[in-house]
Amino acid sequence: MNIDMIEAAAERLKGHARRTPLLTSPFLDALAGRRVWVKPECLQHTGSFKFRGAWSALSAMAPDDRARGVVAYSSGNHGQGVAMAARIHGVPAVIVMPSDAPRMKIDNTRALGAEVVLYDRAGDDRDAIGAALSQKRGLTLIKPFDNPQVIAGQGTTGLEIAEQARDAGVTRAQVLVCCGGGGLASGIALALERHAPDMVARPVEPEGFDDVARSLRSGRIERNARTSASLCDAIITPQPGAITFPILQRLCGPGLAVSETDALRAMAQAFSRLKVVAEPGGAVALAAALYHGDQLEGEDVIVTISGGNVDAGVFCDALRAHAE
Amino acid sequence: MNIDMIEAAAERLKGHARRTPLLTSPFLDALAGRRVWVKPECLQHTGSFKFRGAWSALSAMAPDDRARGVVAYSSGNHGQGVAMAARIHGVPAVIVMPSDAPRMKIDNTRALGAEVVLYDRAGDDRDAIGAALSQKRGLTLIKPFDNPQVIAGQGTTGLEIAEQARDAGVTRAQVLVCCGGGGLASGIALALERHAPDMVARPVEPEGFDDVARSLRSGRIERNARTSASLCDAIITPQPGAITFPILQRLCGPGLAVSETDALRAMAQAFSRLKVVAEPGGAVALAAALYHGDQLEGEDVIVTISGGNVDAGVFCDALRAHAE
Repeated sequence: MNIDMIEAAAERLKGHARRTPLLTSPFLDALAGRRVWVKPECLQHTGSFKFRGAWSALSAMAPDDRARGVVAYSSGNHGQGVAMAARIHGVPAVIVMPSDAPRMKIDNTRALGAEVVLYDRAGDDRDAIGAALSQKRGLTLIKPFDNPQVIAGQGTTGLEIAEQARDAGVTRAQVLVCCGGGGLASGIALALERHAPDMVARPVEPEGFDDVARSLRSGRIERNARTSASLCDAIITPQPGAITFPILQRLCGPGLAVSETDALRAMAQAFSRLKVVAEPGGAVALAAALYHGDQLEGEDVIVTISGGNVDAGVFCDALRAHAE
Repeated sequence: MNIDMIEAAAERLKGHARRTPLLTSPFLDALAGRRVWVKPECLQHTGSFKFRGAWSALSAMAPDDRARGVVAYSSGNHGQGVAMAARIHGVPAVIVMPSDAPRMKIDNTRALGAEVVLYDRAGDDRDAIGAALSQKRGLTLIKPFDNPQVIAGQGTTGLEIAEQARDAGVTRAQVLVCCGGGGLASGIALALERHAPDMVARPVEPEGFDDVARSLRSGRIERNARTSASLCDAIITPQPGAITFPILQRLCGPGLAVSETDALRAMAQAFSRLKVVAEPGGAVALAAALYHGDQLEGEDVIVTISGGNVDAGVFCDALRAHAE
């Protein structure tokens, strides 16, 4: 896993993935007490950065393997990304999803032409289900983060951040990344190491699901006590990945954890100030920038909004409670 | 008013206005029965395309005139655009707004440093108020649409549409433009005439406020019977402009009118499928593409989302009624 793979992925993504803009608002700057630059990957195809990794992985496969089809397990965003990438490539996709995933994510994955297999997040082992399907039907398993070509695709977000920030005159900043298994954070960190050496990536997680932050502190892979019952469904994973963790450990600053309430408040700010739709897990990095500035350094902070696949009910609960 | 002014405005806007992306969704394509390309100007600074015209006008002023300050009348989006452009230029701005404008627009205009003067939309004449303030305080009046440099700024949206569509392989399409006084529609039409001659702009208005569509049919400027009490506040103007109408007449296809309900349904689709926030008036073009396809021609349709400055309550009403 290295920067060359990310740059090769960027070539394969050209004309397929969207180059999302870098957004700002004087209102967010005032709230955060520093300049806030937002990379809204909710505007990516399928509503999250996951399309990048999915396209990277599928486009890197040998055509014969790809033709047999792919399988992925996912709380919903990786699944939608794989489903759409498979549809465009004209190959079958099976997506293994927790039965408590947001309805929109399940519906969209099906509507994108994939076969959806539901499992119980608390009781079943999704790795085992994915592996079994892979073996039985000859499908290639596209893991959500512990796959070098997936990390390479997510890392293209970091290439764009480095270039867009430089164009805006910013070369020194902390880059806050919504973090589940660490695919996006490790990919961005590798891209910044080469293309923006004065920037440092910092993973942001929901309180109670801060396995990455604790692992970075202890120096070994720590697990979450719970792996369900969070509004931040997109970024709840049991533990950092075997491939992603060493990269995070080598390159990232300390992790941050924010409350669900702060994530909902950040969703309301993204609505009011940026006119974009963030899902709870996609808003944790913005929440850290806006409400945990005491843990940050520097005049500029760059944040990812990793996804926007949220049911209308949850979104309006956030606006009702927190919109100004 | 000509294409050279639009191209000069594009130079002045570089590095100041945002180049918004061109978004797509397979779900919208399926709903519309053709490919739908969306230019989300809600992602522009201050949440609407109006920043383009405001920046164009202020940046084109003689420095001495500009230093004395500017005045604008606006339902809110033009006002925010002028307020922010004035703030960045370091000059005073007075914004004359209807007292029934969305609270968010009034609050934001003040927060951007402008002095806000409220008027009664039904009883007062905003042109007269603006002219009086201009004379009394030596402020330059920046009209919302009947100003060549404002039209030139809005027209930069059309330059980007032509270029982004061509990059996506689309050169022939109808371009649906949310239309109040016709500043955006006439600017886009001029840009397409030069840079995408096989595209035609078509204004879209709310039912009951379709002065432009009726004027295009009759060949002379028609007025609206009512000029208030619409959710589509951003695009309710008494009549097409003296400068904009001849351009619309020469270059645009027939106007379209959509119901408020269709605008709200389109807002819900923009939320679910594009992850952007559209205000009711900003969603009428998307509504025409999705729900009035029988009045369109061709395999591709391009639509503007002209703004996203909507109060949370209205937005959630739209989602509650229409989100899937």
